[in-house]
Amino acid sequence: MTAIHPVILCGGGGTRLWPVSRKALPKPFLPLLGEETLFEQAVRRVAGDDRFAPPIVVAGADHADLIEAQLGPASGARLVIEPAARNTAPAIALAAALLPEDAVMLVCPSDHHIADTDAFRASALAAAALAREDHLVSFGIAADRPETGYGYLRRGAPLAGGYAIREFVEKPDRARAEAYLASGEYSWNGGIFAFRAGHLLAELAAHRPDMARLVAEAVAGGRWEGARFHPAPAPFAAIAGDSIDYAVMENTARAAMVPADMGWSDIGNWAALAEALAGEADGLGNVVRGAVDLADCRDVFATTDGPRISAVGLEGVCIVVSDGEVLVTTRDGAQGVGKLPGAMSQ
Amino acid sequence: MTAIHPVILCGGGGTRLWPVSRKALPKPFLPLLGEETLFEQAVRRVAGDDRFAPPIVVAGADHADLIEAQLGPASGARLVIEPAARNTAPAIALAAALLPEDAVMLVCPSDHHIADTDAFRASALAAAALAREDHLVSFGIAADRPETGYGYLRRGAPLAGGYAIREFVEKPDRARAEAYLASGEYSWNGGIFAFRAGHLLAELAAHRPDMARLVAEAVAGGRWEGARFHPAPAPFAAIAGDSIDYAVMENTARAAMVPADMGWSDIGNWAALAEALAGEADGLGNVVRGAVDLADCRDVFATTDGPRISAVGLEGVCIVVSDGEVLVTTRDGAQGVGKLPGAMSQ
Repeated sequence: MTAIHPVILCGGGGTRLWPVSRKALPKPFLPLLGEETLFEQAVRRVAGDDRFAPPIVVAGADHADLIEAQLGPASGARLVIEPAARNTAPAIALAAALLPEDAVMLVCPSDHHIADTDAFRASALAAAALAREDHLVSFGIAADRPETGYGYLRRGAPLAGGYAIREFVEKPDRARAEAYLASGEYSWNGGIFAFRAGHLLAELAAHRPDMARLVAEAVAGGRWEGARFHPAPAPFAAIAGDSIDYAVMENTARAAMVPADMGWSDIGNWAALAEALAGEADGLGNVVRGAVDLADCRDVFATTDGPRISAVGLEGVCIVVSDGEVLVTTRDGAQGVGKLPGAMSQ
Repeated sequence: MTAIHPVILCGGGGTRLWPVSRKALPKPFLPLLGEETLFEQAVRRVAGDDRFAPPIVVAGADHADLIEAQLGPASGARLVIEPAARNTAPAIALAAALLPEDAVMLVCPSDHHIADTDAFRASALAAAALAREDHLVSFGIAADRPETGYGYLRRGAPLAGGYAIREFVEKPDRARAEAYLASGEYSWNGGIFAFRAGHLLAELAAHRPDMARLVAEAVAGGRWEGARFHPAPAPFAAIAGDSIDYAVMENTARAAMVPADMGWSDIGNWAALAEALAGEADGLGNVVRGAVDLADCRDVFATTDGPRISAVGLEGVCIVVSDGEVLVTTRDGAQGVGKLPGAMSQ
């Protein structure tokens, strides 16, 4: 059996993790959960295992040097430099166009946390098997709370190692999210996909012919520079950006999902990071990094790159001090951090 | 009628207003409420009015230069430099010993805020009239909430312009504080006093003879240096420190009080400062100083000397960024700030 080709996407900004995540050093490249960055974790998750080929990384030019530094020597990775940010469908299509038609690609965001690598690999193998049978496969993340911030996948008929997708659901309201959780039929759409490269491009040509044509032109006019591929800027910039869900997954008749119960978090905001770090909490649920003094606090997350944080009497609050900025947010408010003037204006 | 002699005490540290209030520049000398410092307000409160003589300021050597700078030129003030901090009774006795026996002294802390100067002066005149009749007079601050952080005075028999004090009450618990407020018989002991200088010294000699003797020795052995008086260090350092309430007021048979409804606050912590600044609040009760962005916040107080503060979703929280320290506290927690490692170790 041929190896699976990981495609690691580095497009996200992570403004909800401001002020630590910045344009110049965004979320994937930060050691948010330990010594490794999220990107390094994404790479390691598919490394040292013959079932996975060296990855293709898709990113903007601003982060190319950072990526190569974090990849380390001899990774065998190739780097596709997007001339412009056009959402996930064009990024994935670029990688597909550089792979053999029959290669199975495994598309992974670089800014998620997955606690259980073995479970991830098992789901990846199941997804790859379905992809070889010409399914377009999404990971269905086991939902453990009525989350309103994610899209959902509804299970349909069983397939070998997975299910057909009966329905894609946009971010639901609270009541619907609770009903989804109770039904057991829904899982989160985690943005992890597997397809045959040629099949993905054929489906894109069927559903987004302009995008498919412009990606093909950008690849035809592109050039390699060592392990870096530079698509032709003009056709790529002319693409009307779209997500792979909208452009392909919701339109294909071959959408499938594999269940994935692997300790997944998108680390979507400070509250999610605090949750992912709950194992480090003290007896009162507090997680701290750096010089932090807490008194009478519960479920506080506090991190600082220098100035001491002192806190009294707080519950369920995140305090982040980074590079001359001080952020204080409730866990519920953490979703709104990206819309703060500081996060918007950097 | 002779003028009243203000005695302004500058002994307090103000650790609960850390990290803005520091040992080197404590609470009285900070412009917490506007352009003037609390000390400058205390001086101005008795200035430009023939009924008040120039003040005597009692302070430690560390703050002498600061005090003279904030007094400005030609204040006529005299400065008594305490060789050691020994609480309020010795400080007040030093000032009394430098005044004529029949002088009425008005003892004022330098770290309180009083919104209504006219009401303050009216209470001061009433207190001085009682002091001339050999009462030892405390201001009874009109209580407007069941505060558990202050001592209370219970009114007894009416006197001209005031009342005898029936009882001194230590900081009560919540239930008792509520009963006091409901009864209407209790007011807060605000630490503002009036007495005849000779009478205060006589009462001190009766109730704390060692303290009275050591103060007399410290004054006899002291020296003037311009407008600064330096008591002899050895006898003053030998004093067992005590508050004027414990040393004299609770022991005398001549304790009286004058009602004072004058917009008083001891600015005892960040929550109290936020309360005193409520007039500057936005429509949601937020008060901000410096570079602050708030989203979905209510009753938040935020002040910074530089780094931007961004906050989301908070209610009833104080955020203070000063000189490389970041403090975040609930209003209820604000009482505990002085016990934080940062406040203790400065």
